[in-house]
This record gives sequence, structure tokens and C-alpha cells, in this order.
Amino acid sequence: METPYLFFLGDVQDDLAAKTSRGIAAWRPERCLGEYRLPGCGTTLGLDELGFGEAVARGAKTLVVGVANPGGVISENWVASLVEAVEAGLDVASGLHQRLNDIPELRTAALRHGRGLYDVRHPAGPLKVGTGEKREGKRLLTVGTDCSVGKMYTTLALEQEMSRRGFSVDFRATGQTGIFIAGDGISVDAVVADFISGAVEELSPVNDPDHWDLIEGQGSLFHPSFAGVSLGLLHGAQPDAVVMCHEPGRPFMRGIPKRSLPDLRECLEANLAAARLTNPAVRAVGVSLNTGKLDEGAAEKVMRETEKLLGLPCVDPVRTGVGPIVDRLEGL
Amino acid sequence: METPYLFFLGDVQDDLAAKTSRGIAAWRPERCLGEYRLPGCGTTLGLDELGFGEAVARGAKTLVVGVANPGGVISENWVASLVEAVEAGLDVASGLHQRLNDIPELRTAALRHGRGLYDVRHPAGPLKVGTGEKREGKRLLTVGTDCSVGKMYTTLALEQEMSRRGFSVDFRATGQTGIFIAGDGISVDAVVADFISGAVEELSPVNDPDHWDLIEGQGSLFHPSFAGVSLGLLHGAQPDAVVMCHEPGRPFMRGIPKRSLPDLRECLEANLAAARLTNPAVRAVGVSLNTGKLDEGAAEKVMRETEKLLGLPCVDPVRTGVGPIVDRLEGL
Repeated sequence: METPYLFFLGDVQDDLAAKTSRGIAAWRPERCLGEYRLPGCGTTLGLDELGFGEAVARGAKTLVVGVANPGGVISENWVASLVEAVEAGLDVASGLHQRLNDIPELRTAALRHGRGLYDVRHPAGPLKVGTGEKREGKRLLTVGTDCSVGKMYTTLALEQEMSRRGFSVDFRATGQTGIFIAGDGISVDAVVADFISGAVEELSPVNDPDHWDLIEGQGSLFHPSFAGVSLGLLHGAQPDAVVMCHEPGRPFMRGIPKRSLPDLRECLEANLAAARLTNPAVRAVGVSLNTGKLDEGAAEKVMRETEKLLGLPCVDPVRTGVGPIVDRLEGL
Repeated sequence: METPYLFFLGDVQDDLAAKTSRGIAAWRPERCLGEYRLPGCGTTLGLDELGFGEAVARGAKTLVVGVANPGGVISENWVASLVEAVEAGLDVASGLHQRLNDIPELRTAALRHGRGLYDVRHPAGPLKVGTGEKREGKRLLTVGTDCSVGKMYTTLALEQEMSRRGFSVDFRATGQTGIFIAGDGISVDAVVADFISGAVEELSPVNDPDHWDLIEGQGSLFHPSFAGVSLGLLHGAQPDAVVMCHEPGRPFMRGIPKRSLPDLRECLEANLAAARLTNPAVRAVGVSLNTGKLDEGAAEKVMRETEKLLGLPCVDPVRTGVGPIVDRLEGL
């Protein structure tokens, strides 16, 4: 995919729905030129708002459909804009389940104007079923109490800090945003169910004994929509180290009104118990909280309390960095 | 799919690999005309061995690729035979991951001869993500210590016995064999990972309060290749009642040499703990053992011991029937 990107935010209503765009803009700002919003859009990345022609004139190469929604569909009222973007000279890339290449008008326009349509969520090659066989190299996986609690952010923050300290390390992307950031990866929620753990085994192959793969987690063992993905990912990753991610104060599970989040200790124990199937030596090395909605004092307090409750270093990657977690990895 | 069936057994080596054909032949014998084996095939259904022309002459309508293998691929050395079958006048149906419709020679032959190619493992319509929302009606799910331990067989035996006693009951198929037997269903291991639990919610919709859906389980929470499928299925089924299936004496997990089976109590507890996420009232109602490889005395002994160990009725559907488990359901 050619850069720089223009982000298509559509008419989505909240910030979480634009987390793909926000993630790319946060971690690869040098690739991000502007944003395009439909009337009624309830979020912004704070980038320049540009029309398609204007964006092309400034050098934009790819329109990134940088939004997420339940089911991963491309709204019908987006299609005219996407066709317009292609006509203006942009490639289009999407990480949604529904494929750009399955929309006839868009495909026709792309063919006519010689533009590319990239469906990054769909694995290219054939996959194998997982084996659970132990692979050389070290692996860390982020797990969560819910979707959208900061697993990717935490994983990228760990990559940054570990690289800085001289670890041999790779970020392994398992979702659309991570793939846009890393340049490759496998969207594990988009593979055929039989191949979830096999896909992760392929994503994180045998490596040097002191090399760390930092694998981006997905969903939660406690999310009734996606727990199967989380479990297959956990088994395929066979992590040596697990970091649990959580947003304190979130009232309900993402997309499931009235369902509370799991208890932190129960969530961590369930993840460790399941992880032991493919790596009996797995251990928890830290907790990463997203305290963005709390003031400094409240954030400090919840971090101290969580640290005490679980006996693990507790950080907020944005407020405190992830140093205390990386300290724990020094000895592993 | 038109019946009667001719079964294609290919050159598979063991009985378990032919479990699709065997299951259909056991539960719907009136639809089964014969079998076709390649040189070196190590199993038989005990049906008449017929050539394609001979089978057509006797009335066969559909060649069922009735074998399973890891990865669900159609071997290259099967293709010539499948083409020959089409040329002889048979439709072809398969429950493997790899699609008949993706094999160019076969597709061409089917078009030329006006025959159908049925890929039953691939869900027809678009799916939704699961919600975990409680649905009216009662549900029973079979779970297992491993793959291929008798979950489908047990579920069908329960359907038979419950129908006989006047329960309002439906068998809900989640795998290729079950779909051939039921005539419909969704192969949950073939859906995109994000939709596992949603597919099961669709398969077993709202029903009358006293109606039972008997949902065929898949895999095992303890199988490193497929546990994600099993967990999504468990959450989507939101079972009121769980029956655990097991083959005593099996040395290793199916397809994973050197990996032992889980402890029965640990396996049952893990399933109940996970099931509580979408149905806190779930309970275990019995254990179903496949004692086919044991003599009468040994089978009796292991059933008595298991009953005592878990405090649940323990049956072998083939030896004893499933009556004691259905007794437990009378009051629920």
C-alpha cells in the first residue's frame, strides 16, 4: 500500500469506532495526511479535513477506510464516496470483514481507473491447523478484560521500549490497525475458525532463543461474541509472558449493553489456565490500564490498587510508559 | 442433495478418517447405496463396493466425499476419480474445507455434464456476531475431551430417545456429517472466526419454553488446534445442559502425538466455567463414553468408575443407550 494515507471516517458516531485510523495516526504519523468525513460524523482525528481532489493534489496515495463497526460491514451510503475517491486517483484499503473487492460499483471503478483495492483483513495464503508444538524463541501476548481496552497500544509501547533497551523484538499484528502499522500480519478474527491457532503459529514462527515476539491480543475470553478468537489466539501464541489490559470504570462490555466486565483476578487466572495448555511455563508480567478518562489522582490510585490486588507491575502506557513491565522481562 | 448416496472413501488409512460416511450410514442407512475405494484404502463401511457406472445403474444420485483429514483438503490424486464420477452422471457433495467448486477440472466437468457440486461445509448466508443474549427454549450441548469421541453420535442418540419419550426436540448440526444427516446446519469450524458464537445463535434460535435443541459439539477446549471453535460454540449455544463425551483409553489427542487427554473432572469444570458466561444456570447432566475398544467387563467397570468420580449418569450410547441421561432431563 502506498503512503501517505487519507482516512475515511464515514459517518461513525464515536471515537472507538475510529480506532483504526487513530492507531495509525498515533504510531505512524509520518504516513498520515488528512481525514475525510461524511455529514453527521461524530469523531475526528484532528488531521486536516480534505476533499479527495485536494488530498491527491497534496500527494495522498491511499484512502484508508479507518473505522470499525460490529460485523465489519461497508455501509451502503459510503460506497458513492469510495467510488469518488477512486475516480479522483486514490487506491482504497480496508480492514473490514466485508471486502471492497465484493462491491461491484467500486470494483468496476477501480478497474476503469487502474487503482488498487486492498482488503488487509483477509489472509492471502492457505493456512494450516495449529499443533501446539513448542517453538523456539520467546513470546509475549496482550490479553484483555474486553475489546478495545488498549491491547495493540500496549504491545506497540512494549516494542518501542524493548527496542530502546536493545532487546531483539518484533511486533506481530493480529488485527486490521496493527497490520496497517506493521505492514504485515494476519487478522485472526477473519480466518476460518479451524485455523485460528494455526494462523498465530504461522505469524510467530520459530526464532532465536532470546528473540521476543510481541503478539497483539484480540477480544477477551469473557466477551460472548469473540472469546473463541481470543482462546485460539492464546493457544497459538503459546506465550511465555502475558500482559493483561483493562479500562478501569468501563461500565459494560463493548457492544453488549448490560454485561459487566469480568473481575480482574478471575480474568487473569482464566487466561493463564487456558494458556498452560500450550505453554505450562506461562506467567503474568504486568497489567496495562487505559486511564484516559480518569484524572491524575484517580489514575494513580487505581494503578496502585491494581498492583496490590494482583501483585504485578501496573502501568498506563500513555501516562507512565511500560518500563516496569519491561524490567520484569529482563530476567526471563 | 439427491439420494441415495455413493460414498467416496479415497485412500484414507483409518476408520476415524471415514467417520463422515460411517455416521451417515449408521443414522440414515436408507440413503446409502454403496462405497467407492481407491487402491490402498485402509477402511470400509461394509457397503457394496461399486464403480461409478454400476452405482448410477443401481440408482445412485450423489457421490459423497465422506472422509475427513487435517486441514480438510481434497487430495490431488482424488480429482481424476471425482471427474469420472461426474462424467458417469453423479452429483458430488463434500464437507471438506477445500471447495469442490474451486477445482477447475471438476467445475468444468460439472458444467459440461449438468451435475451439481455441493460444498456443505460453507455457510450460505451472511452471519452476525454473537450477543450472548438469553434466548427462550432449552438447549443441550455435547462437549468432549477430544475430537472424534462421539459427540455427534451421542447427540443423535439423545434425539432418538427424547423423541421416543415425547419431548419436543431438534438435532442441530454443526459439522459436515451432521449436516448430511440433518439435511441442514452450519459447519461452525468453517465460519469466519469472529462469527463462531453468532453462527450458533442463528442455528439455535428462540423457541418454545419446553423445546429442546440438541446441539452437536465440536473439538475440545483442551485441543490446541480447535479450542477456539469449541469455546465460541459453547458461548453461542448457551446450554442449559451439558453432556461430556470421552473415549476411555485413548492415549493421545487426535492428530497431536504425545499430547495426553485432559483429566475428566478438569475438562468438565472448564466447560461449565466457560459456559456460565452466557448461561449461569448451566449444569452437567451426564457423561457419554465410547467404549467400543473395550470388552464388556472393562466397559462396565469404566462406566461405574466414571459415574462415581463425577457423580453423573454415565452411558455408552451403543452399549447402554442414553436413557439415564434423558431421565435427568425430564425434570429440567
